[in-house]
Amino acid sequence: GFPGTPGLKGARGENALSYHSAFSVGLSSMVPSTNVPIRFNKFFYNQQHHYDDVSGKFRCSIPGVYYFTYHLTVYTNDVKVSLYRNDKTVMFTYDQYQERDVDQASGSVVLKLEAGDEVWLQVYGEEKVGGVYADNNNDSTFSGFLLYPDIQETAKRRR
Amino acid sequence: GFPGTPGLKGARGENALSYHSAFSVGLSSMVPSTNVPIRFNKFFYNQQHHYDDVSGKFRCSIPGVYYFTYHLTVYTNDVKVSLYRNDKTVMFTYDQYQERDVDQASGSVVLKLEAGDEVWLQVYGEEKVGGVYADNNNDSTFSGFLLYPDIQETAKRRR
Amino acid sequence: GFPGTPGLKGARGENALSYHSAFSVGLSSMVPSTNVPIRFNKFFYNQQHHYDDVSGKFRCSIPGVYYFTYHLTVYTNDVKVSLYRNDKTVMFTYDQYQERDVDQASGSVVLKLEAGDEVWLQVYGEEKVGGVYADNNNDSTFSGFLLYPDIQETAKRRR
Ligand SMILES: [Ca+2]
Ligand SMILES: [Ca+2]
Ligand SMILES: [Ca+2]
Repeated sequence: GFPGTPGLKGARGENALSYHSAFSVGLSSMVPSTNVPIRFNKFFYNQQHHYDDVSGKFRCSIPGVYYFTYHLTVYTNDVKVSLYRNDKTVMFTYDQYQERDVDQASGSVVLKLEAGDEVWLQVYGEEKVGGVYADNNNDSTFSGFLLYPDIQETAKRRR
Repeated sequence: GFPGTPGLKGARGENALSYHSAFSVGLSSMVPSTNVPIRFNKFFYNQQHHYDDVSGKFRCSIPGVYYFTYHLTVYTNDVKVSLYRNDKTVMFTYDQYQERDVDQASGSVVLKLEAGDEVWLQVYGEEKVGGVYADNNNDSTFSGFLLYPDIQETAKRRR
Repeated sequence: GFPGTPGLKGARGENALSYHSAFSVGLSSMVPSTNVPIRFNKFFYNQQHHYDDVSGKFRCSIPGVYYFTYHLTVYTNDVKVSLYRNDKTVMFTYDQYQERDVDQASGSVVLKLEAGDEVWLQVYGEEKVGGVYADNNNDSTFSGFLLYPDIQETAKRRR
């Protein structure tokens, strides 16, 4: 017989476009306490609601490789901050404060996360108040976004 | 008769690969004036020409979620910088300068942009010259890139 | 004869999901020497092994557009660091140290790389020891990730 009609166009390649996870949050005032997650309460972007301002934690919904970064205004006191993943410290940022020398401290990291993993920032140390400062003209921020979804894992979970 | 030969392979799935927008620019000398967009004139990457060195502004061509970041050398004066989106301040970075203590100040944010949106950095304050410094051995930079294109919006615009 | 059976479903769209390149590394102690690549020896992420801790260099396997960023603890001495691409300096970060004023210095850049290109950080200057500091509670880090693979180039190489 004659050749058949051409097949249907293949399905749209499953692709990265469906996998979005990003947040970018800030503070409206100084961090009030140490040794608990910093609760950022100003939202630049949080469309997927993966950052939870009640707990102060980002919670991973899409397994994969993420980038996290923070920029902190150092004022009134030294800044001692740690980035946590599931109750374990991942990295530390320390910046000393000297009078009339407001500083900026920042850090960033790439991490592979499983669904349910939590990532947050916390002021550590024995002082009751750290130096992570913010007001109307001074921002301290925390942002993160998904770089590469772990497709096989995600596909399994969606079945 | 016999079945025909199988049809042609379907077309390649539409994917994120066609959506590129990134820039990375620096300064060759100190920011000369305040309260106007900083015009970065050194180009690390600007293939899509979405950063315009005449206006000093990034102009969004592909609607979607973007990441922006800047790193500034603090020298000769305090640094007071704001990131703008369409004539509104989004965030503020302040770093005080003390003699013989050159500093680095940085900030970053994730923003969802519509086509036509503009994003830039500006020195604010009443002084005529801010402390955003650069020379052959000191960089002050501004970078940004598209994280997730808003496909439906983009597809509509391409039709 | 009858028309043939429809063709097979098209192949999954070739997409960005197969192209992963990211690393995130830190130091466990002070940078011991100047004018050679900084060898980061603490691994937050390096699944593709594109960062080589023996040479201290990231080596590009997938041509495309990359983002690089570093965050350095400034302690005991001034920090003078340059980011290199293939033996040429791309950018410079300078932060002066003053006693009891530990600082944080950071930089970032977007670069288009060809396969084989190498990117690294290096302390420059005439002093034998720079001020890039790290210990258990102070991190100095270097991270990078692929934003947009150069598909045509990559596809050619895979044939
Ligand atoms: Ca300062
Ligand atoms: Ca300094
Ligand atoms: Ca300091």
